Amino acid sequence: MFEYITAGESHGPRLTAVIKSLPAGLRVEVEKINEQLYRRQQGYGRGGRMKIESDQAIINSGLRHKESLGTPLSMTIENRDWQNWIEAMAPDKERGAEIEALTNPRPGHADLPGALKYNHRDLRNVLERASARETAARTAVGAVARQFLEQFGVEVYSHVVQIGSLKSETWTDLKAKDPERFESKEAVKEYFSSLDQTPLRCGDSIKTKAMKDLIDSWRENGDSVGGVFEIVVTGLPVGLGSHVHWDLKLESKLAAQLMGIQAIKGVEIGSGFKGAGLPGSKAHDEIFYDLKQGFHRSSNQAGGIEGGMSNGEELIIRLAMKPIPTLAQALHSADIISKKETTAAKERSDVCAVPAASIVGEAVTAIVLAQSAADKFGGDSMLEIKRNYKNYLEQLRKF
Amino acid sequence: MFEYITAGESHGPRLTAVIKSLPAGLRVEVEKINEQLYRRQQGYGRGGRMKIESDQAIINSGLRHKESLGTPLSMTIENRDWQNWIEAMAPDKERGAEIEALTNPRPGHADLPGALKYNHRDLRNVLERASARETAARTAVGAVARQFLEQFGVEVYSHVVQIGSLKSETWTDLKAKDPERFESKEAVKEYFSSLDQTPLRCGDSIKTKAMKDLIDSWRENGDSVGGVFEIVVTGLPVGLGSHVHWDLKLESKLAAQLMGIQAIKGVEIGSGFKGAGLPGSKAHDEIFYDLKQGFHRSSNQAGGIEGGMSNGEELIIRLAMKPIPTLAQALHSADIISKKETTAAKERSDVCAVPAASIVGEAVTAIVLAQSAADKFGGDSMLEIKRNYKNYLEQLRKF
Amino acid sequence: MFEYITAGESHGPRLTAVIKSLPAGLRVEVEKINEQLYRRQQGYGRGGRMKIESDQAIINSGLRHKESLGTPLSMTIENRDWQNWIEAMAPDKERGAEIEALTNPRPGHADLPGALKYNHRDLRNVLERASARETAARTAVGAVARQFLEQFGVEVYSHVVQIGSLKSETWTDLKAKDPERFESKEAVKEYFSSLDQTPLRCGDSIKTKAMKDLIDSWRENGDSVGGVFEIVVTGLPVGLGSHVHWDLKLESKLAAQLMGIQAIKGVEIGSGFKGAGLPGSKAHDEIFYDLKQGFHRSSNQAGGIEGGMSNGEELIIRLAMKPIPTLAQALHSADIISKKETTAAKERSDVCAVPAASIVGEAVTAIVLAQSAADKFGGDSMLEIKRNYKNYLEQLRKF
Amino acid sequence: MFEYITAGESHGPRLTAVIKSLPAGLRVEVEKINEQLYRRQQGYGRGGRMKIESDQAIINSGLRHKESLGTPLSMTIENRDWQNWIEAMAPDKERGAEIEALTNPRPGHADLPGALKYNHRDLRNVLERASARETAARTAVGAVARQFLEQFGVEVYSHVVQIGSLKSETWTDLKAKDPERFESKEAVKEYFSSLDQTPLRCGDSIKTKAMKDLIDSWRENGDSVGGVFEIVVTGLPVGLGSHVHWDLKLESKLAAQLMGIQAIKGVEIGSGFKGAGLPGSKAHDEIFYDLKQGFHRSSNQAGGIEGGMSNGEELIIRLAMKPIPTLAQALHSADIISKKETTAAKERSDVCAVPAASIVGEAVTAIVLAQSAADKFGGDSMLEIKRNYKNYLEQLRKF
Repeated sequence: MFEYITAGESHGPRLTAVIKSLPAGLRVEVEKINEQLYRRQQGYGRGGRMKIESDQAIINSGLRHKESLGTPLSMTIENRDWQNWIEAMAPDKERGAEIEALTNPRPGHADLPGALKYNHRDLRNVLERASARETAARTAVGAVARQFLEQFGVEVYSHVVQIGSLKSETWTDLKAKDPERFESKEAVKEYFSSLDQTPLRCGDSIKTKAMKDLIDSWRENGDSVGGVFEIVVTGLPVGLGSHVHWDLKLESKLAAQLMGIQAIKGVEIGSGFKGAGLPGSKAHDEIFYDLKQGFHRSSNQAGGIEGGMSNGEELIIRLAMKPIPTLAQALHSADIISKKETTAAKERSDVCAVPAASIVGEAVTAIVLAQSAADKFGGDSMLEIKRNYKNYLEQLRKF
Repeated sequence: MFEYITAGESHGPRLTAVIKSLPAGLRVEVEKINEQLYRRQQGYGRGGRMKIESDQAIINSGLRHKESLGTPLSMTIENRDWQNWIEAMAPDKERGAEIEALTNPRPGHADLPGALKYNHRDLRNVLERASARETAARTAVGAVARQFLEQFGVEVYSHVVQIGSLKSETWTDLKAKDPERFESKEAVKEYFSSLDQTPLRCGDSIKTKAMKDLIDSWRENGDSVGGVFEIVVTGLPVGLGSHVHWDLKLESKLAAQLMGIQAIKGVEIGSGFKGAGLPGSKAHDEIFYDLKQGFHRSSNQAGGIEGGMSNGEELIIRLAMKPIPTLAQALHSADIISKKETTAAKERSDVCAVPAASIVGEAVTAIVLAQSAADKFGGDSMLEIKRNYKNYLEQLRKF
Repeated sequence: MFEYITAGESHGPRLTAVIKSLPAGLRVEVEKINEQLYRRQQGYGRGGRMKIESDQAIINSGLRHKESLGTPLSMTIENRDWQNWIEAMAPDKERGAEIEALTNPRPGHADLPGALKYNHRDLRNVLERASARETAARTAVGAVARQFLEQFGVEVYSHVVQIGSLKSETWTDLKAKDPERFESKEAVKEYFSSLDQTPLRCGDSIKTKAMKDLIDSWRENGDSVGGVFEIVVTGLPVGLGSHVHWDLKLESKLAAQLMGIQAIKGVEIGSGFKGAGLPGSKAHDEIFYDLKQGFHRSSNQAGGIEGGMSNGEELIIRLAMKPIPTLAQALHSADIISKKETTAAKERSDVCAVPAASIVGEAVTAIVLAQSAADKFGGDSMLEIKRNYKNYLEQLRKF
Repeated sequence: MFEYITAGESHGPRLTAVIKSLPAGLRVEVEKINEQLYRRQQGYGRGGRMKIESDQAIINSGLRHKESLGTPLSMTIENRDWQNWIEAMAPDKERGAEIEALTNPRPGHADLPGALKYNHRDLRNVLERASARETAARTAVGAVARQFLEQFGVEVYSHVVQIGSLKSETWTDLKAKDPERFESKEAVKEYFSSLDQTPLRCGDSIKTKAMKDLIDSWRENGDSVGGVFEIVVTGLPVGLGSHVHWDLKLESKLAAQLMGIQAIKGVEIGSGFKGAGLPGSKAHDEIFYDLKQGFHRSSNQAGGIEGGMSNGEELIIRLAMKPIPTLAQALHSADIISKKETTAAKERSDVCAVPAASIVGEAVTAIVLAQSAADKFGGDSMLEIKRNYKNYLEQLRKF
């Protein structure tokens, strides 16, 4: 379940996302999908296109009267700027003589390897699909997955912890600094929700100021900005994923889908690269038991995954996003036709998309978790899945 | 092609690996498989078991007279210590009354989440499969993949760049320091080959000394040691992987399989997390063209992957390995039956397995690349695949 | 390549089909897709809906200027009667009080098992997706696959060989009766093309008359009509599919997708069930060689597949379609809510859809063959695939 | 779950089968696996090899003390005649000069297409894997699946209903002739169990005599014999498979795996090809409800599947097996090296393997049903799966 395909060129008529199957009887609100699409379009450092877009999902199938039928859920998101692209991108018309080919590939993009692999002489044939515009479709899929996870009390959050060279506190830092602050689920939710009102989805307002200045200053140089964001998931039960084969490991599934987000070059779980430098005695999460909490831990170096499975603690993942490779101060390049020196193409682009990427990261994480939960609990209707889930929790309690 | 399953418990009778299909007419030397199995068993910091093992692959099918038939290639690796485990691990005998259950889970391992998920009351039922012993099977699969890649001039290397808190130079550092040193393929091969003669697979002998001391000192404290290793691949053509869908991206496939190696908690490609802090103008690899080299770059921040595809530069990946969670100075735990406080189980274990993990990392990388190359070039016999490959290179040259 | 998902309810706003990847540089004409959609809507015995529909594919992505980009190809087919269904089937509105639930399941349909499995209390929630309306989406996918296969000279044909209890000659019969008639490719094409002008896609005009009478007479009784159709593929090279694992066998892939067409209850390849009764000496196709034809056969009992692979002869498959289970003279049923006796629901329906199903059968066969050819020949652009294909043919010639 | 790979050449050292994952806590008896391997080796018309073989499964992993761990279950089956094949089939030795290549392909086998596809010059490189010897591995996998299904009261049976041109009664015929005879589950089990004591697994002893005579007479002519067998499954719940996408349909999954059995050329479900000729009013199974049975039917034309799902009735499938293509009176062929006329190779072979194939058909059906049940019910331990299953049945009762 929750297997999906996305389709769509950046300036084509519309994006498509199809989820092949999901449980029947799930309430799905289109407003909640649009809300996620909106969140993806925010953030300081975005370019002009975000204003044009204001993405809206249209449901083509899979829902009836706001409830899933268990059948493939198809969505489309219209390109609101399509009228301006109709000649350049028409699927079903001969190419007009006036359509110019893009021939100066941008370093850091799919442009050059894509043209060589697919034997394209117009780089637009590559970049239209490689563009992060595609992540709107994944965000929509993730917004459906979220509505499923909510039924089980699972919440998927994110915040930005680095913009350019400026770092702010990670979730683990924040909790260590003031352990009582995040004791209640409500406080956690409130912290992360509040970030949607900030320009960079970073919880530190002083750092945010500096980050904005950095973005402004690099923008002025015709430059672009990357960063790091962190995904935090609460409410996960023990036992998603598996240790029995590598491709069933939760971290493998997460890494695959998260590394598949445009511009992501690194992923780490829990203490990650830092944890690799610790002695074993400080790198693991000791096990405790009491009647109220059952088995639990006093730390979360593992980031919620041990041996390929969720262990009941919060899931914590950090993702490194490289600076956007489309630069106003364009990089050196070579023309694919003439082979002569040139500068890279300048597609309209953002300067910094880390906050947007964090929303995509949430979406993708939600998808993986929905897939994993559906695998674990079986069943075809929400009635059945929730019953199976409830009984599993009871089994854990009585273990 | 090169799809595979591994099977086997750590102390069961034998490991199994089956590669479902591979091209016909590939010369496969068992000695080369055993050589990789041997490399996996080396490295300063390994425990006593490595001496018992000395793994050897037995070929059950798929080869005839040292050549692949195109049929499933099955291998087994015997457990040389099986006689001592026959009662405890017998697949086909009733459990003897004398077999004691392991009930004190080790933090950082699959023990506890695995027992809860699968409803096991003996942690051995979990840990036997979660153990890194399984990586011997993947190493064997990788050794077959390597022999395939060699036919195309692709070489998969690794070195250790961090042990505990001690870092040494990355591949990019090394090349920057002395650009001429690694100009020839032979020099690269020689550098990496020489590491097999070192205790930690690190190219810096002074750092190695310090790393060994760190291992010794942490071992004395009953502690264990993690680290970071780097995979370097040379000879890759442009165009493995794809930008058209997330699950076809080369980095997604690599991240999935590499994150699926036991104890790996982070993966980064090219400049990775560090690159996220750079301005765009310094984070990408400018494009050049000349007749001799065709399209090429002056740097390799991308680590050989742009837009989901290999771009013809070296593939560079770094992996963070957490310290082994089985500690002589055992961590706090809670008994799964009595629920009382206890200390974690102490299975025989290594203190540091980073060098071994780097060999597994090579193997897994080789598998992903062999899969991707087979996808890209099609064909069923080596004759056909090599012809397709050669003609593709010619197409690139004439692009 | 050519992996796909279809989505859409019968009376929902639109159907969706997404092909995840296909080669770049393939010319795709939407008219050719619409032509197949048109063919699917013809045939004596169809109900009133066919007149409303007149399906048209809209391309959402994957093509630019009539050429494939190598990216996911998304298509939608609008429901022209949507205005009449907007309240009953609205994805994104609360259910109106006036919407009545369907509660009397039709024997032979998904209605009852679907309601029980998915916990639906309105059978419309099941039947909308189970309906053969979905096959329009697969026909569209197949029409793209056909355009790919045409590039390799592969043609996918069908004819109807049985309507109700009336049988006409199979392809093998026809060729046996007049061996010279179908010696040229043009004659074969002409025969099958001419069937589109007939009411039942059967080549025997006298039998057709009787079949029409049978349909009329059964219709008058409130009854419905099934039958058998045959798929014939010409121009296939040796070596699609494989003998090395069951799921790589061409007949497995064909049987899976063909049995997945609504109302199909049997599939046989070559002489099939009849061949099971022959002595071995008469059931196989002796092998000959001459310079002009290379290896070839004097008969085709195997229907073009030996040992899981195409053998270079015509592919011949027959499919049994049960009579449509929606009957004017409704069958006995039991209400899913009251559990009382009732008669089955009477959705608007066809009396005989065998000719339509034969078009769907062609489409699905084309998809499987396109997938298998793409697997066999590799490559990402038509340039590359055609080159690989040509060189493989050359290899066969020189074998 | 129950995903698997088989490996092994017919005369190689051993066959391998690996089931990637199965639920933990399943009791698996190796004797029951061996019992199925024994059944596969019986039947009138088998050749000399069956006496040599007497297959035994060796468990390499996945079980501990006769219980599944949830981990990959690896099995091997030794070739008892290996000493005689060690030079001809050695995986890891150079080919000896004395090893002669087989160059005269057998019509009806993979020999010729396999050699052309994989570029083999020795047909043994193809036939060793294409051989039905491989089905021993699938039978072993099926024997594990059966032990899982038994826990849910699902029984998988088969009988032979045609040998050569001689037909005997199908399951539907038998039940129609004497409806009371098979009212109890015990009677059904007894009927099918008794067939293991008969020479051809056919329930009609008079027909069996004639069938044996036919086998003898065709054998004397150097000929071989095919036939038809029927699979019958009892105890299946409503709701395995799905109507929502073609590849989730139970009949698609069954057809794929069953058509993937060597020599199978046709598959039909329920009334199949015969049903295609009936009027709709006689081709479907009317729906009734009473408190004791819940929803049920008075007939079973559907063969237990409607709309892609099991409907709670018996599953009935018939499979057409072509005569074995290896003939004592060898067919015409052409040498693959010299291209000259020759007669086909005469590997040692059976004359009739329909009874054996029926056991393989049972095994494969059991695998598909175990996969489908595991998908439907979720869970990782038998405790959990059985609980989920029980609660689903309760849900159906209260529907």
